[in-house]
Parts: sequence; structure tokens; C-alpha cells
Amino acid sequence: LTTKLPAVGTTIFTVMSSLAQESGAVNLGQGFPDFNCDPKLVADVTQAMTQGLNQYPPMAGVPVLRQAISDKLQLLYGGKYSADSEITVTAGATQAIITIILAVVHAGDEVIVLEPCYDSYVPNIELAGGVVVRVPLVPGSFRPDFDKISAAITPKTRAIIINSPHNPSATVWTKADMLRLEEILAPTEVLLISDEVYEHMVFDADKGCAHQSAILFSRLAARAFIVSSFGKTYHVTGWKVGYVAAPAALTAEFRKVHQFNVFTVNTPVQYALAAYMADAKPYLDLPAFYQRKRDLFRSGLAGSRFKLLPSEGTYFQCVDISAVSSLNEADFCKWLTTEIGVAAIPLSAFYGDGFDQRVVRFCFAKKDQTLEAALARLAKL
Amino acid sequence: LTTKLPAVGTTIFTVMSSLAQESGAVNLGQGFPDFNCDPKLVADVTQAMTQGLNQYPPMAGVPVLRQAISDKLQLLYGGKYSADSEITVTAGATQAIITIILAVVHAGDEVIVLEPCYDSYVPNIELAGGVVVRVPLVPGSFRPDFDKISAAITPKTRAIIINSPHNPSATVWTKADMLRLEEILAPTEVLLISDEVYEHMVFDADKGCAHQSAILFSRLAARAFIVSSFGKTYHVTGWKVGYVAAPAALTAEFRKVHQFNVFTVNTPVQYALAAYMADAKPYLDLPAFYQRKRDLFRSGLAGSRFKLLPSEGTYFQCVDISAVSSLNEADFCKWLTTEIGVAAIPLSAFYGDGFDQRVVRFCFAKKDQTLEAALARLAKL
Ligand SMILES: CSCCC(=O)C(=O)O
Ligand SMILES: CSCCC(=O)C(=O)O
Repeated sequence: LTTKLPAVGTTIFTVMSSLAQESGAVNLGQGFPDFNCDPKLVADVTQAMTQGLNQYPPMAGVPVLRQAISDKLQLLYGGKYSADSEITVTAGATQAIITIILAVVHAGDEVIVLEPCYDSYVPNIELAGGVVVRVPLVPGSFRPDFDKISAAITPKTRAIIINSPHNPSATVWTKADMLRLEEILAPTEVLLISDEVYEHMVFDADKGCAHQSAILFSRLAARAFIVSSFGKTYHVTGWKVGYVAAPAALTAEFRKVHQFNVFTVNTPVQYALAAYMADAKPYLDLPAFYQRKRDLFRSGLAGSRFKLLPSEGTYFQCVDISAVSSLNEADFCKWLTTEIGVAAIPLSAFYGDGFDQRVVRFCFAKKDQTLEAALARLAKL
Repeated sequence: LTTKLPAVGTTIFTVMSSLAQESGAVNLGQGFPDFNCDPKLVADVTQAMTQGLNQYPPMAGVPVLRQAISDKLQLLYGGKYSADSEITVTAGATQAIITIILAVVHAGDEVIVLEPCYDSYVPNIELAGGVVVRVPLVPGSFRPDFDKISAAITPKTRAIIINSPHNPSATVWTKADMLRLEEILAPTEVLLISDEVYEHMVFDADKGCAHQSAILFSRLAARAFIVSSFGKTYHVTGWKVGYVAAPAALTAEFRKVHQFNVFTVNTPVQYALAAYMADAKPYLDLPAFYQRKRDLFRSGLAGSRFKLLPSEGTYFQCVDISAVSSLNEADFCKWLTTEIGVAAIPLSAFYGDGFDQRVVRFCFAKKDQTLEAALARLAKL
């Protein structure tokens, strides 16, 4: 059997979570909360199951949830998306992204990714027979390099994938960044795939997601797939529900593939999320909730030899390890997990060529006591 | 935007379910139960959620569920599958099948499907850049035509997809059928993809799934992907959980793609299914449960002008409509839904060329009173 994905092993998140578990380490590697979701949300799922809402939902998602998503997009960004023809519920953002790519990328089409990037994008493009065009973010600052992006566009470019707030670097695009991208894409037919799973975690006021997304919705909307997820927003990463919002013509192509990938998504969870969103808008409190945790974690590291990079959004904090260790990122993360008892993720895992800039990522979506336990261990360094 | 799937519209199941709902018809079209699952299963999901089992599970599925699947395969078929390296939990059987195809089918590889077949197989193969080779089942009997299968195999054949108990025809392969396939595949390197989602619904004693799967496990096991689903077995088609069992080398390739398609599957549902399978083996009662419904539905149609085809397995009953109507299958199903108030599925939807043999499919996975209501309406014909 000749492998389809020669460069691919087991995703780094699985590798580090397994190692953390074996070593009894505090797991600040893979991005997920170690606290439970709102009990109200659990009760909503139970109610749906008890009512017998356990059979196939409509292929695009249950109408009440699609309406709740449409309402949210309007409320937060002024985006106008038809619940009927422009929103599709997915089995998480990862399934959304591979499905978009399978739906629009023809063999030989080029797709631009900005490295470091989430580790599913590149294999997704390869599985569609596309050609991956890697454009690096500026090393050190992780800001987009628009000259390089512009130069990477050719007549074969089908799409560009962007991700702000950005995993792993925790940077957030500014309004000026978005305007610059719009300017570059306007004369082309390049599709925009915007991975916005951390949309509700933007810190320090005016960098807010409202800025970037308002631009998307006003000008690039006709060619954009907006991808998001409920897992990170509602503290249920294991429920695997996300969505895609895109103009009707793009949604039609998306659904052609979606129906033959997962077909549909867990019914009671969909009804529960719809009910929950009608009552509560927890994402309005999320920036403050995570900003406090970020600040707690950063203060804990302030006196250390780790150099703290900015964390403008997401629930990640990157640090430069140069002054702490001479190991490469991957070996450092293994050593940190097994010897110091704190798991982290090497940024090299987000680059195709394993580029090593001595930076690793911690996840601070954890109980305060977990963060404190990790900080106590890290203080040894 | 040039479509990737020019032949694909909205799946027939969605089309007919929507029409049934708009028309207030009894929906015997799309295959799902109209009764609820065991309340114990609902309680198990609630318990898992309340315990905080709401974050990412391990990529291949939670170990306790993989072990329960391994135990079931051993108990029922004597199959030996390592929970660790040979079983992967999927977001339903549809996601399992596209993932297998994306993992093993290279551009230009041929994949044999036996028509009529489930409507996702062909687009799945096309999305992987594969070449679809359609071999018809014998018209009328829907038995495999092994001479045709044998003749379809070329050096470029990568895989064959089989499905027994068979949707839509409700036929079940015999032991002799399996032996014959084994004989044909033995000298080749063709992979076997066995869609067994109706494995627990085999009627009339000796045609049991134990026969066919024992053969798979003993001789073709080294090249087989066994696909099944919990939705049909536990009356929760909307939960979207299935699995793939395959030798470690095939599983390794499968997981490379799986992790970048859905990554993981709903955590609390996985724990609940594991707990439930430890206590209860409802699939042992399933043949008798559905055989009674099949017999009820068949007796109700006995005096009608529908010609009943055999229903050896699945929860479907096919009928020949020649004596009832001169409409083609698709128009007949629409007419039956809107005018008579009973939804059915045209078999032509399962053929690439829309082959019309005047046969439609009813689903009898319904409450007795639903079946009686449908029969009362059908009695008008
Ligand atoms: C899908 S697994 C990993 C979660 C995540 O997004 C991350 O840790 O970067
Ligand atoms: C996945 S939707 C349809 C359910 C089904 O398997 C069928 O009706 O054939």
C-alpha cells in the first residue's frame, strides 16, 4: 500500500496529549479546557434526547441552529447569511475545512497557506490533488507579509486560507491587515477560507474580531467561506460541532461534498446549542474570561527565562525558549513533558519543513489551579 | 466556480424527507426509526456529560468503546481486532467510507461498486480522483454477478466496495457468495471495503451475518476494511457514530486521513455507547424485532398490486410498482408522497445512469401504528 500522505504521522496534538497522560504531566499542549461546560447546556442535550430528537437531522443542520448562527453573525458583525441557503452545520471546523477544500480545489489548483498553520490544512489540500503554496508569516512577529502573499498568487491560485486569531502564534489581524488582503484579492478570483474558531477570544479592546469580520462580510463576502466551531466557545471541544457560512453558490458546492462526507451532525447537540444560544450569549463574556487567564499565566512566567511573545487572541501563549534550553523545539517539549511535568506544543509542528525558531506554545484554557500547578513546575527552570 | 461533482444534486434521502414533511406524508423513505432509543442510553450520555467528559477524546476513539467494539467482533464473528491499532471510531459509516477511499485511492485508481449502491460511494471515489467501475447486480434478483465482477478487475483496481445486508435491495449475501468473492480476490491485491451497517438485521435464520463475516475475518481479513455504525443498531441514526475495523497497516493509513477529516468523534456519546454495550447486547434481539415489523408490513401489502420482493435483511422492503402505476420510479415516489401520503425511495437513485426497473423501497423501521397508517393509505391503490 503506497501512502497518500508520506509526510504525515500522528498529529502533534495526539502525540503530546498521550505523552502528557503517560508522564502525569500538566497538559498545556493540546488546546482544550480542563473545566466543564455550563450545566444548562448538558441539560439541553438531555432534554433533546429525551424528547426523541435522536434521528437524522436535515443534511445542512437543524433549522433552529442555523437560524441561531445567522442571528449571531448579524448581531456581532452585521453579516447577513440566510439560515436556509448560506449556513451549514459541520462536525467541527476541521471537517468544515477539508470539505470546503474537497469541494472547490481541483487537481493542480494552488492553495496558499500562511505558515505556521494548523496541521490539517496541508494534507487536506494534498488529498484534493491541489498544490500547497506556503507563504511564511514574518518570523518573530508572525504578521502577514503581504508582498509575499501578493507574489504567491498565480492564475492557478484557487484559494487562500487565513486564520485570525491565529493558532499557534496568538496574533490577531488588524483592520489594516484585512484591508490590505482585500486589495490584493479584489482583482483576482481567489476564494477566501477564513478559519475563525478563536473568533470570540480577542484581547485588549480594539483588536476585536468585529473589525476583521466586518470587512470580510462587507467586501470579500461573495467569495468567502467563514468557518467556526462551538467547541472552543462553549467549552465542549469533544462535541465536534462547527459551521460554515458562505454565499449560496459556494454553500451549494459545499453541501454536495458535505452530504457525502459526514452527511449530518449529532442531532441532540444541535438542538441543545440552538436552545442555549437563544438564552445565553456566553461568547460576549469570553474575551474577559480568557484575558484574565492569559494575564495570570503571563504574570507567573514574568520572572522566568522564557521570553513571552504577545498573546492578542486565542487561548495560547507562545514563549521563546532560547534562554532556557539549547534543545530544539520538539525535543524541548518532550523533555518538558517527561522531566518537568508540563506539556507544550513545538511551533515546528506547524511548518512543512519543521522550521525551528525556538518557540513553543502553551494553552491557558485551564482551571486557575492547573495553571498554578504548571507555573510551579516551570519555576524550576 | 466549476463544480467538482457535476452529476450530484441533493441526496435523494434529503429530497424525499423534505417532501414528506411538506406533504404531511408518512415517511417510509429515508431509513431511520420513528421511535426513541432505550432511555438507559440517554442516561449514559447525560452521565458522561455531567462527569465532564466533554473535551477531545483520543483521535482513534475512547479506549473503552474501541474495546467494546473489539469484544463484539470477537463474540459475534470470532474476529480478532486490536482495540489499540485496528479499530477507529468514526462520525458514522458515511464518514468512514469517504475516509477509507481518500486514504487508499490514488488518482487514476479504479474502484468497483456493485449497482444499485448507496449514493455516497461514487462521489467519494470521484473526490479522491479515482475511476468508478460500475458492475450491476443481477436485475430482478439483485444477486452479485461474479463473472462480471471478475471481468471488471484490472491491474488498476485498488478496491471493491460490497454491502451486505444490502441497501436498497434488502438482499443478503450467502456463504457461497463470500467464498466466490474470496476466490476472485485471492490472486489480486484488491482491497475490500465492506459496508456492514445493517449487520444485525438479517432475517430467516441461516442467512445470518455470522456466515459472511466469518469468512471475511478468516481469509480476506488482511485486506479488508469493515465498516459499521451504531445509529441503525441502537435506534440513534442522528448520533453519527460508527467504526472501521481493519488490520494495523490499513488502520494506520486510515487514521492519517481521519485525523485531518473529523479529527475525533463526540466524546460523551462514545462513553455512553461503551457503557451501554457492557450492560446490554440489544443487537442480539434486533433480527427478531425487525423481522416482526417486516412481516407486519408485508402482510399488509399482501393483497395489493405491489409485487413484494424478498427482504432478507436491512430494514427495507422493495416492491415492484408495474401493476400499480405507469410512472417512472422517481415520479411515482413523488406522486405517492404528495397524493397518497406515503414517502418511498426510487431505486433509480442508486444507479449512476438512473436505471429504472419499476422498483421502489419502503423503510419499515417504524412504530407499528406508523406502518398501519401507511398501509391504510396504500390500500387505496
Ligand atoms: C483538533 S486537536 C487540537 C486542538 C487545537 O486546535 C490545538 O491544540 O491547536
Ligand atoms: C444517510 S441518509 C439515509 C439513510 C439511509 O441509509 C437510507 O435511507 O438509505
